[in-house]
Amino acid sequence: MKPLSVSNLHIALLHYPVLGKTGEIIASAITNLDLHDIARASKTYGAQSFQVIIPLKDQNKIAQDICDHWTNGHGSRSNPHRKESFELVHITPDFESAINNIQQQTGLIPKTIATTAKKSDNCISYTRCRQLIQSPDPHLLIFGTAWGIAPEFMMQCDHILMPIQPDALYNHLSVRSAVSIVLDRLAGEFC
Amino acid sequence: MKPLSVSNLHIALLHYPVLGKTGEIIASAITNLDLHDIARASKTYGAQSFQVIIPLKDQNKIAQDICDHWTNGHGSRSNPHRKESFELVHITPDFESAINNIQQQTGLIPKTIATTAKKSDNCISYTRCRQLIQSPDPHLLIFGTAWGIAPEFMMQCDHILMPIQPDALYNHLSVRSAVSIVLDRLAGEFC
Repeated sequence: MKPLSVSNLHIALLHYPVLGKTGEIIASAITNLDLHDIARASKTYGAQSFQVIIPLKDQNKIAQDICDHWTNGHGSRSNPHRKESFELVHITPDFESAINNIQQQTGLIPKTIATTAKKSDNCISYTRCRQLIQSPDPHLLIFGTAWGIAPEFMMQCDHILMPIQPDALYNHLSVRSAVSIVLDRLAGEFC
Repeated sequence: MKPLSVSNLHIALLHYPVLGKTGEIIASAITNLDLHDIARASKTYGAQSFQVIIPLKDQNKIAQDICDHWTNGHGSRSNPHRKESFELVHITPDFESAINNIQQQTGLIPKTIATTAKKSDNCISYTRCRQLIQSPDPHLLIFGTAWGIAPEFMMQCDHILMPIQPDALYNHLSVRSAVSIVLDRLAGEFC
């Protein structure tokens, strides 16, 4: 398997609108290690930005404080590698702001690719997704927190990516694992 | 890519002997989400056990308490899926106990495969590793916390697996991401 250029790929972590335990639409809370693990995986595989979409004001502030610690604060000096990965992170209050960030960075509005753990008929394959992200257009790969991206939001995305293990008896990976595996499938190199 | 049977595969997370920031040998502390994420990934890909090797007595107790919460306590009732994944977890004080656990479970002493982020001449490929774990022998895939498995320990393993991104400019994945990606490379199915 050959390495791909993912210089047009951006990652988003959605905290709203996502599903709660009983299927209601919620705004979820920040998980510190989501920011670390996804920033590190994004940097490793060459993604161009990591958009953290978090509308709750106090949670948005916590996320920004974490980010500042690792990009400008004590963390940036104690762990320069972590600083490098956190420099990809943008903390945003809503999806439109994330799109605007990418438009400012690239000059183009990104195509959107939602991810899900639930199989459906209109999912694209990893092969197709690898082709898409080699096009000149920026692409934004969106991961949901909690019990996943709300269906209404997902319907508005340009594409939905095939689940990681659609036929597994147990299919409950963390979002940190899911992002890592999807990035490896799209941009990993191994024999 | 076809799914593999990984019914002979076991996972270990090593907290001693591992390297500290300046290359000294240390015993690292438990990270709660290591247990969750690696148990969930192990269950998703069909690994047979997840051995958490933690010699520090207070840390070993914390790990056991977390495990008990999700297998027998309130967590087991509030999230049965999490219970299923934590049922794979064995909290052990040393490597020998982990080997004994697997020998009790399978009747055989497992072959050991160390993982590393540093490239070396004697690493085996993912293709070779997929072949190994299809043999009748149990195999134990070992991941280091902190700055990775101590070289003296690694030298005693039967095999060392190729790093995930040996030629990447940035190569600093979390151990949670690393386990997820390696399991997907060894046992994932996608097109």
